Amino acid sequence: MTPSGEFGKARDSRLEAEGFPTTVVVGRGVLSRVFRYLSPQDSWAVAADEMTSSLFGSSLGAAGRTFLLPQGEEGKTLSSVAKIYSFLGEHSVDRSGTLIALGGGAVGDAAGFAAATWLRGIRLVQCPTTLLAQVDSSMGGKTGVNLPEGKNLVGAFHPAEWVFADIDCLASQKDGDFRQGLAEVVKYGAGEDWNFFSWLEENASGILRRSPPLLEEVVARCAKMKLAVAAQDEREQRGIRARLNLGHTVGHALEAAGGYEKWKHGDGVAAGMMVAFRLACRLGELDEEHITRLERLLKTFGLPTRPDRPWEEIAPFLLRDKKNLRGSLGLVLPRRDAPCELRRDIPLSLLREACEKTAL
Amino acid sequence: MTPSGEFGKARDSRLEAEGFPTTVVVGRGVLSRVFRYLSPQDSWAVAADEMTSSLFGSSLGAAGRTFLLPQGEEGKTLSSVAKIYSFLGEHSVDRSGTLIALGGGAVGDAAGFAAATWLRGIRLVQCPTTLLAQVDSSMGGKTGVNLPEGKNLVGAFHPAEWVFADIDCLASQKDGDFRQGLAEVVKYGAGEDWNFFSWLEENASGILRRSPPLLEEVVARCAKMKLAVAAQDEREQRGIRARLNLGHTVGHALEAAGGYEKWKHGDGVAAGMMVAFRLACRLGELDEEHITRLERLLKTFGLPTRPDRPWEEIAPFLLRDKKNLRGSLGLVLPRRDAPCELRRDIPLSLLREACEKTAL
Repeated sequence: MTPSGEFGKARDSRLEAEGFPTTVVVGRGVLSRVFRYLSPQDSWAVAADEMTSSLFGSSLGAAGRTFLLPQGEEGKTLSSVAKIYSFLGEHSVDRSGTLIALGGGAVGDAAGFAAATWLRGIRLVQCPTTLLAQVDSSMGGKTGVNLPEGKNLVGAFHPAEWVFADIDCLASQKDGDFRQGLAEVVKYGAGEDWNFFSWLEENASGILRRSPPLLEEVVARCAKMKLAVAAQDEREQRGIRARLNLGHTVGHALEAAGGYEKWKHGDGVAAGMMVAFRLACRLGELDEEHITRLERLLKTFGLPTRPDRPWEEIAPFLLRDKKNLRGSLGLVLPRRDAPCELRRDIPLSLLREACEKTAL
Repeated sequence: MTPSGEFGKARDSRLEAEGFPTTVVVGRGVLSRVFRYLSPQDSWAVAADEMTSSLFGSSLGAAGRTFLLPQGEEGKTLSSVAKIYSFLGEHSVDRSGTLIALGGGAVGDAAGFAAATWLRGIRLVQCPTTLLAQVDSSMGGKTGVNLPEGKNLVGAFHPAEWVFADIDCLASQKDGDFRQGLAEVVKYGAGEDWNFFSWLEENASGILRRSPPLLEEVVARCAKMKLAVAAQDEREQRGIRARLNLGHTVGHALEAAGGYEKWKHGDGVAAGMMVAFRLACRLGELDEEHITRLERLLKTFGLPTRPDRPWEEIAPFLLRDKKNLRGSLGLVLPRRDAPCELRRDIPLSLLREACEKTAL
């Protein structure tokens, strides 16, 4: 495995962070170059959903070694993972073997969990095909599945050795799904880097047109931030990594309150960020102008800017968040001149006020 | 959590290894002292099988918080783990919570896997109640479950924060089960420390009578060796930890060939060690005298000293061992003046010869 990062005319971006075991390769057509990076002599298999397998499986050249998961969150269950185990057994994937996840966030999470636990952990390669997976879920090592009792209740930290983010995959993504990824992109700007936020404002229309060079820059910049934060707090024990959950506490509650049907993840995160901004403004950490700018950018990207239901319907779901510890609510709040931060000192009454004010 | 290791008259042994996150507490009656070591303010739950729960649950004081697993290997399945997840959800065990495994190896492995994966990992406390679990399976961080396709195919490395080995639990263990643990005890002597082997020879009858001071020394010495080896190679990537599998390659194959009904784990390991000794002798690493001593000790402990079936029935199962990589057989061989070592250069023909010679 001695990849050069450059093959013929194509030039892929390679991203790494000191102390984190993942290399991210971003570029157009990288899927067809995966096996120039990976040594193929070991045992390997692919997990994909039907759509990603039919769209992109041939670029990867994985016919005959691909396990098909049900589409979307349906595939992110213990029973799907059990079927992946059987597939790995049938294909004699041993401790030196590799599981390649080809698809969106659900495929990456479920296949990632299978790789984390098959023979107590084998090599994982992520080939994210959606914007959401390319900028967020495929990196950082979080894997997991849903239970009837709740989302992502079961999982493991198991960073991919390689992430191949092929920008060409994004051209065919449905608008509604692409938008979900944009919410996470905005999150990196609002939570980690105001310069990136300004860059998004300037390039919003080109990004919406899915200009490949702009998307490549979006994915590479987000990947760099994600790796840098994950490297500082791999197992989410130090409060640093929780920063990446800006907008997610209220966002998850909104998703859950709608039964995961009305709103998808990015919709919830978008409205959740608006609430977090309002709260930060109330606490003097941000200015009204920040709220205006966030609202404008989210609207440009076609994302919601206010909760779709009253506080009474949101509150019961807030208290189930994994970031909560012993009854204290964990909330990530943005700041004017610094990355956002995890706070545990926010009374529920203030959150309620921000929520209701945002909903107006 | 500021345990003193000494409460009233009882004096518990505490064992740790530099760089490994487990503290092992060995002593008589330690189960009733678990909550003097653990801070009980966090959310917690217990997993046990019916027998261990009825025998020892009251010492632990865990009524109402105990999930009951099916007895033995029946409980070591993905479906049992899924039920533990539901129980943890019902009892609101959050990221700061603890799962306590009370029982033998199967309970520890299944509950350990649940703890490794619930909310991507919560604190695990092992309360092993069998000799096998006290000297081996509760320590070192290996957790996992069986699949229809094979044993321990799914799992995670998740070391317990605490292991409480209560010597009093061993008094009620059935002879047949106690013997399975003795096979692993002999393994530490034969593989890691010839002085310990000699000590076992001298004290065999007292151990068989289950003298508490002798059992305490057995458990403490084995625990110390296990922690020391695991600390050097937590994820079994460096060949060091594989040493603890002396006798296990052939042993697993013998267990599997008998459908896991005729022979249990320790029986297989005992006969497997005899084969490994014969092979080491053939390679000049040991003397005939070592074989004689091992055979005598195993017989004293009521363990088998030869394979119970011909090579043709063993071979197909040998090739499925997890230690094998890309077709090369991994075999642990004892040495005269050093700890045993993992070898990958042993031709199958030599193993066959040793197996057949041992069976004579």
